[in-house]
Amino acid sequence: MNCEIERKYLVASETWRDAVTSTRRLRDGLLARFEEGKVRVRVAGPVATITIKGPRTGLSRAEYEYEIPRLDAEEILNTLCHPPLVEKTRHYIPHDGLTWVVDVYEGTLDGLVLAEVELEREDQTFALPSWVGREVTGDPRFSKGSLAKQFLPDPKLRSA
Amino acid sequence: MNCEIERKYLVASETWRDAVTSTRRLRDGLLARFEEGKVRVRVAGPVATITIKGPRTGLSRAEYEYEIPRLDAEEILNTLCHPPLVEKTRHYIPHDGLTWVVDVYEGTLDGLVLAEVELEREDQTFALPSWVGREVTGDPRFSKGSLAKQFLPDPKLRSA
Repeated sequence: MNCEIERKYLVASETWRDAVTSTRRLRDGLLARFEEGKVRVRVAGPVATITIKGPRTGLSRAEYEYEIPRLDAEEILNTLCHPPLVEKTRHYIPHDGLTWVVDVYEGTLDGLVLAEVELEREDQTFALPSWVGREVTGDPRFSKGSLAKQFLPDPKLRSA
Repeated sequence: MNCEIERKYLVASETWRDAVTSTRRLRDGLLARFEEGKVRVRVAGPVATITIKGPRTGLSRAEYEYEIPRLDAEEILNTLCHPPLVEKTRHYIPHDGLTWVVDVYEGTLDGLVLAEVELEREDQTFALPSWVGREVTGDPRFSKGSLAKQFLPDPKLRSA
């Protein structure tokens, strides 16, 4: 088990684009929910995974992730996961010893851009890049569950 | 993807015990349901798996199964799966070119014994072993979902 501790932010400017070191296209499908947990299937470039996420406690949640054959993942996304799938391009941006990801959403979520950083401890201090806007960690409007339902936050929430 | 086609029976006598070639202890937990599908975690001796089962059509259902670390599986069974877990001993019995399994349930399902055979085609013909009793394929009282809820079928249903 990994314990996923992440903080999530809106993006205040476009300057993050200058610092991107790599980019991947992601296609996510929610396969099943249980209590406060979920099972997700993802295709990220050539790699596919199945991920179990447990209930959230504070900023943390248990996470188990396993690589699965990409062909299986495509079938599961197309036949068993609840449409619509979430499609986005993930950009990786190193900053002050941490790797930030900026997700640029597509489809009905077009226009939504979220930044996330994964931490090792809940109380870890870290430097915010200048392009990071308002924190939305724990805001249910920006949870992956809400986004998977293609809930598009009010346009004014999308600005920092 | 595999396509799982199986037929399920009650057991009419104890003579199957003489033909057992191997035995494994299974511990199954239902992690999540979705529409008519489910995600299951199993520890079978030293091997642990996560299995996605799609909706049933006739005798068939799509099935995706992946091996996962046993330690992860134990954690998931103990912390994320809905109690109670299903615990049983599975006996393998070759008969006329097919392998039958006889599951002997424990705990609150103690006394329940079910035989299953996995087929390659829905219309496949095969020889029934003499110890096989009444067929219960498709009987919701004997579905793994019902059994996972520790629904103990009426004692008279358990005889062949």
